Amino acid sequence: MIVLAVDCMGGDHGPKVTLPACRRFLDRRPDAQLILVGQAEALAGFSHERARVVAASQVVTMDDAVEVALRKKKDSSMRVAIQQVKDGAAQAAVSAGNTGALMAIARYLLKTLDGIDRPAIATQMPNAKGSATTVLDLGANVDCTAEHLLQFAVMGSALVSVLKNDPHPTVGLLNIGEEAIKGSDEIKRAGELLRAAAQAGDLNFMGNVEGNDIYKGTSDLVVCDGFVGNVLLKTSEGLATMIGQFLREEFSRGIFTKLAAIVSYPVLKALKKRMDHRRYNGAALLGLRGLVFKSHGSADALAFEQALARAYDAASHQLLARLQSRIAHAAPLLSSPATTPAP
Amino acid sequence: MIVLAVDCMGGDHGPKVTLPACRRFLDRRPDAQLILVGQAEALAGFSHERARVVAASQVVTMDDAVEVALRKKKDSSMRVAIQQVKDGAAQAAVSAGNTGALMAIARYLLKTLDGIDRPAIATQMPNAKGSATTVLDLGANVDCTAEHLLQFAVMGSALVSVLKNDPHPTVGLLNIGEEAIKGSDEIKRAGELLRAAAQAGDLNFMGNVEGNDIYKGTSDLVVCDGFVGNVLLKTSEGLATMIGQFLREEFSRGIFTKLAAIVSYPVLKALKKRMDHRRYNGAALLGLRGLVFKSHGSADALAFEQALARAYDAASHQLLARLQSRIAHAAPLLSSPATTPAP
Repeated sequence: MIVLAVDCMGGDHGPKVTLPACRRFLDRRPDAQLILVGQAEALAGFSHERARVVAASQVVTMDDAVEVALRKKKDSSMRVAIQQVKDGAAQAAVSAGNTGALMAIARYLLKTLDGIDRPAIATQMPNAKGSATTVLDLGANVDCTAEHLLQFAVMGSALVSVLKNDPHPTVGLLNIGEEAIKGSDEIKRAGELLRAAAQAGDLNFMGNVEGNDIYKGTSDLVVCDGFVGNVLLKTSEGLATMIGQFLREEFSRGIFTKLAAIVSYPVLKALKKRMDHRRYNGAALLGLRGLVFKSHGSADALAFEQALARAYDAASHQLLARLQSRIAHAAPLLSSPATTPAP
Repeated sequence: MIVLAVDCMGGDHGPKVTLPACRRFLDRRPDAQLILVGQAEALAGFSHERARVVAASQVVTMDDAVEVALRKKKDSSMRVAIQQVKDGAAQAAVSAGNTGALMAIARYLLKTLDGIDRPAIATQMPNAKGSATTVLDLGANVDCTAEHLLQFAVMGSALVSVLKNDPHPTVGLLNIGEEAIKGSDEIKRAGELLRAAAQAGDLNFMGNVEGNDIYKGTSDLVVCDGFVGNVLLKTSEGLATMIGQFLREEFSRGIFTKLAAIVSYPVLKALKKRMDHRRYNGAALLGLRGLVFKSHGSADALAFEQALARAYDAASHQLLARLQSRIAHAAPLLSSPATTPAP
């Protein structure tokens, strides 16, 4: 039996979206249980034999500063949901709330795994092979050392091994050229560390990749610092939105083009489905002593259900144990010289 | 009369592409002259009353290391074209060759402008407003200080004032959130410098922008370091290619969808035209004591002609003088503390 704790109040829409998603999720997975966390009155209408409510009186809003979420809202649905994981009542927590607050609370309550300096956020992006490329970090860490990038690579490999059921997913280091001599000193050093980890059997490292390789699907996993990851994710959202807008504008220009739109409807629908970011909803917060998944704040019920499914898959495939075992194996390479105790 | 020096041998296709582009360019601009630089036999077939050939015996290939281009190929078409600018024979040089070599040779021959530590590469990207967003740097500089980012903002503003004929283009600093407290220490410091420059009347700075703002067209100019700029450009290329592939696949799935493709042909053609990267070809190398423009290596004649047109516009609107005047005005803020002589 897999138990997930759900922050039902988080995100732009709260229970309006989270509760229908929870119901569909429960109906599809007979071995799953949910702990629904939120304000009692907001969750009163929901009942399911495999769901129970844990009350939390406060809600972290999308605009709350991290400090407010952490110090002033100790009974928030977000925090109480993560507490369920800490207490062993749930194997994973899922929230659509404020990313900064979620990361801070998760880090405060669960602590990081041994060997990991900073947790990272990993998500999947669609690729031209019809599969998905996992990218991390996506905004948790703006300045990363080579050791951090190696930690991301090891954690990301554990995640992808669960998501794709492949014990040796390929890893690419995001850079501005394929040659090992490209990039900043820190990136070059990261390349050396990743190669060393590959030789030690910790990673299936294939070398540098470039921005276009994410969508080509050149490697299963792409590692970058959180600044670059956030920019590439937001840039992609912006470009996809613009292309969608151009398509709509061109198809609605006149009577003939509107007819073409009707004739093309099944094609456009299929395209939309392939590009549907809701299918990729559910980013993993990796590096904590517990599993936490982040849904997009604007997720609808379908998207939120995806995030639940991803947390379920991670829990049922023992992602936490896999993370710990991979990190332990790579331990000699993982720590920064500065943080290693003197021999 | 505007005179441009053209590296006719550069790029994936060489004279096959550059010469037809030169002819069309000359036919459309009666006040333009071209200096065609390349191997005499390759250019022998071309004649135009406003074009003359300057022979160069060597060619920098796309794979040549920067050192080879700089030290072993002193009579390359790329170098001789830039030499024309240095000698005052041409107001700007255009090449589709190897970017690293072009930047290195241009920097070696022309030197950087006073107040500028590193030249940057700026290009235009289409936006949802039907206009273009200028982004720099795109790969010349991987580690940038706040002062470098300010230099890019000042130079980019001069370029956009020419391209959009707007003396006060809006400037955004690429970051991972709109709030001034986001990002690395260096980015925060860049934000402070850009605000100071705005107060001094050097820039029309509107604050932080995110990746999606590039395609929204939130600001006329987006400033970032070359690593991030290169990643976002390549990621965009990858995503656009993938969407194009998905569209083709969906439209060719069966008889009905192929019919839909025929009916939609004018729409798809219009979309393709709006997304056509050839229209945005011609990146500016900014910060040198002379104007140099870089065409995409794979440019066809239409795209290469765009690069020529961009160099022509820059030269005819005195981009170099504008750059110098803006840099002189912003001089007190531009230099790094470390490089400023002690008082």
